[in-house]
Amino acid sequence: MEKADILIENCMILPMTRKRPIDKGSIAVKDGKIIFVGKPAKTAKIRAEKKMDGKGKVAIPGLINAHTHVSMTLFRGIAEDKPLNTWLKETIWPLEAKLKPEDIYKGALLGCLEMIKSGTTCFADMYFSEEMVAKAVEQSGLRAVLAEGIFEAGSSFLGEKMLRKSVDFVRKFDGYANGRVTALLGPHAAYSCGEKLLKKICCEASRLGVGIHIHLAESEEFKQKYRLSEVEFLDKIGIIERHVLAAHCLYLSENDMHILSERKVNAVYVPVSNMKLASGTAKVKDLMRFGVNVCLGTDGPASNNTLDMFETMKMATLLQKIAYGDPTVLPAYKVLEMATINGAKALGLSEKIGTIEEGKRADIVLVDLLRPHLTPLHDIYASLVYSVRGSDVDTVIVDGKILMEHRQVKFLDEDAVMEKAEKTALNLLSR
Amino acid sequence: MEKADILIENCMILPMTRKRPIDKGSIAVKDGKIIFVGKPAKTAKIRAEKKMDGKGKVAIPGLINAHTHVSMTLFRGIAEDKPLNTWLKETIWPLEAKLKPEDIYKGALLGCLEMIKSGTTCFADMYFSEEMVAKAVEQSGLRAVLAEGIFEAGSSFLGEKMLRKSVDFVRKFDGYANGRVTALLGPHAAYSCGEKLLKKICCEASRLGVGIHIHLAESEEFKQKYRLSEVEFLDKIGIIERHVLAAHCLYLSENDMHILSERKVNAVYVPVSNMKLASGTAKVKDLMRFGVNVCLGTDGPASNNTLDMFETMKMATLLQKIAYGDPTVLPAYKVLEMATINGAKALGLSEKIGTIEEGKRADIVLVDLLRPHLTPLHDIYASLVYSVRGSDVDTVIVDGKILMEHRQVKFLDEDAVMEKAEKTALNLLSR
Repeated sequence: MEKADILIENCMILPMTRKRPIDKGSIAVKDGKIIFVGKPAKTAKIRAEKKMDGKGKVAIPGLINAHTHVSMTLFRGIAEDKPLNTWLKETIWPLEAKLKPEDIYKGALLGCLEMIKSGTTCFADMYFSEEMVAKAVEQSGLRAVLAEGIFEAGSSFLGEKMLRKSVDFVRKFDGYANGRVTALLGPHAAYSCGEKLLKKICCEASRLGVGIHIHLAESEEFKQKYRLSEVEFLDKIGIIERHVLAAHCLYLSENDMHILSERKVNAVYVPVSNMKLASGTAKVKDLMRFGVNVCLGTDGPASNNTLDMFETMKMATLLQKIAYGDPTVLPAYKVLEMATINGAKALGLSEKIGTIEEGKRADIVLVDLLRPHLTPLHDIYASLVYSVRGSDVDTVIVDGKILMEHRQVKFLDEDAVMEKAEKTALNLLSR
Repeated sequence: MEKADILIENCMILPMTRKRPIDKGSIAVKDGKIIFVGKPAKTAKIRAEKKMDGKGKVAIPGLINAHTHVSMTLFRGIAEDKPLNTWLKETIWPLEAKLKPEDIYKGALLGCLEMIKSGTTCFADMYFSEEMVAKAVEQSGLRAVLAEGIFEAGSSFLGEKMLRKSVDFVRKFDGYANGRVTALLGPHAAYSCGEKLLKKICCEASRLGVGIHIHLAESEEFKQKYRLSEVEFLDKIGIIERHVLAAHCLYLSENDMHILSERKVNAVYVPVSNMKLASGTAKVKDLMRFGVNVCLGTDGPASNNTLDMFETMKMATLLQKIAYGDPTVLPAYKVLEMATINGAKALGLSEKIGTIEEGKRADIVLVDLLRPHLTPLHDIYASLVYSVRGSDVDTVIVDGKILMEHRQVKFLDEDAVMEKAEKTALNLLSR
């Protein structure tokens, strides 16, 4: 065997291609790719530039946060326990109007730092000045699928302008950061973009050959207003014939779910934010029955208030269990699938990431299992979903680069990132 | 001022006697008591044996876990995503039948370690061989309110025997560990103890002058069977005229809530376990409207799967918000009250703990705020409830003794406790 760049040895591995873990296995990484996973034959010792001891740890595919607005770290805790409309209109929107690109960059860096420290290796984001998020992704070493948001708020002029920016973003940033950044178009929602604009977005997506990131069925208002569900409306326009990442998916009829399944729309379940804003509960068991690919997201930190995918995994299943009145709904392994391979599928990246397999890019997280709250270890999947905290993540590798080792972050200066974000947030309030 | 044993300086303090934090304050501790809280006059320098720098930290009253079965750490992850009856009958009860006192001690030590590391300073427990839990509490330095469980399962002989053990436990352990342990009687539930036994428990509680820890209204079965709610039944017997700690409180009519309020019963809301087992959702907003004192618990780690009160605080409010469809329900400050002073009241310890006040015992937790997921700091209560993880706890003081400093636990050997619990759990499965 050729010489590897990184060799993780003596580690429990959850490849997420099957349920049975590999015990005391090895993972070899070269040129950003996984070149070996399994128990190495004793005679075929793998040589490597950098060896990592996986004893007492479990290797999982890096977690994928399929819906967030990462720069909203700046607003964490700024408007708490408020009704959605008050929250948006009195606090979030006025502050967003004051945001400068540089602020978005500072917020994004903080979010990237938080994600690395809690085991997320890839995220899907939609916001303004998304090029600043791309810059933070490039610098932090993470992988991301980014979209410049588009809405018109009654002004077709604004809508056109935002569409041009969103198209421009795709042209410039699809493939950015050695291919770690891919781009989508970002129509905010059916209710915030008119039919004409959505049709144009559809054309542009075809022309560019990219997918769409959109908020879907977060409330019931649309149907009450137009006697057509958001899904039916978007289907009529042709939007959801494309590759679509649809966040929330709360208010869906059986017919809506049927359409989502037929059109192969990817649903992002966002349990923490949905609970915090009391928006509603996604019918994940039903979505899965219809064959819809469901993955997980945190939403922006203003309504969560973290970017912690381990917490989101736990909440994801707890909320489904209580909503269906059935403790067997969404067992732990399914939840981990949602946070890994389902997320990769939803982001159009399942050829590259989402499992630990030879040939895939090396996006790997090592979790330290020698913790009181993870003892005894009867069931590794239950441990990961119900007991592991982001702070148990020891090492994070993305695209074959070590972003964190023994909780030391490599490419970001932790104190400086926090200090600058804190200053930016305070400054923003004083503007 | 006399010389203090411990002086925490330059710290944000949340006394939980009022909402406004003390900024850059000091806390002085002597002989286990808080002797000063506030901003010390510059001239009156407090001298102290041990000084602690509180910069970048917030001091809160130690969290109070008002309902758990701490030795069930041994069963963490042992039977996942199963229906309640299967879970109990096929896994938990058969294993509990095999438990020896020594196992319960090992499980309790692990639980105490986990609680210290996540900022819990006091817990209410009900189990078998509770003297072993008392021993673990003594050794770990924690505070606890313990009850030896009583049920009869159709055998009045068994019921009598367990009652005698429970009474015996109170006699021996009320006031144990320098007063850090107090004791209650522990009738398991209305459905598992007959009327005659419950009346005897009532008499014994009167005679001993102690309260009662009981599971209440965890399911609807009782009312369906006896056409009387558990609350009405227990009220008729006189049980809830005493000091009562009632865990779960899920299925309550308005009349039940009225009775609980009249009888000053303390309700323990157990959101994580209730969700995981899909048992139901407590109507906390209504309970509070009726003036019932509501506090928080984790339940045993077999149905949670942790003892993390920070997680329980977050779930507590998220579940209420989604259940009532109202994001303003249970704001962060209220939640922190539930986990501190309300818990102290519920345990009959509000004279001693639950706030940071001069004259109270020093049960104090320092949380490190210089973390990416806690940046920026717009709202300290939102931070504590929505963003802080148990792993952000830096220092834990109970009864004026430092149990953990900079995450180093003092009175327990962390590795040894984990190793022994792991071995015990494996051995248990092989019996």
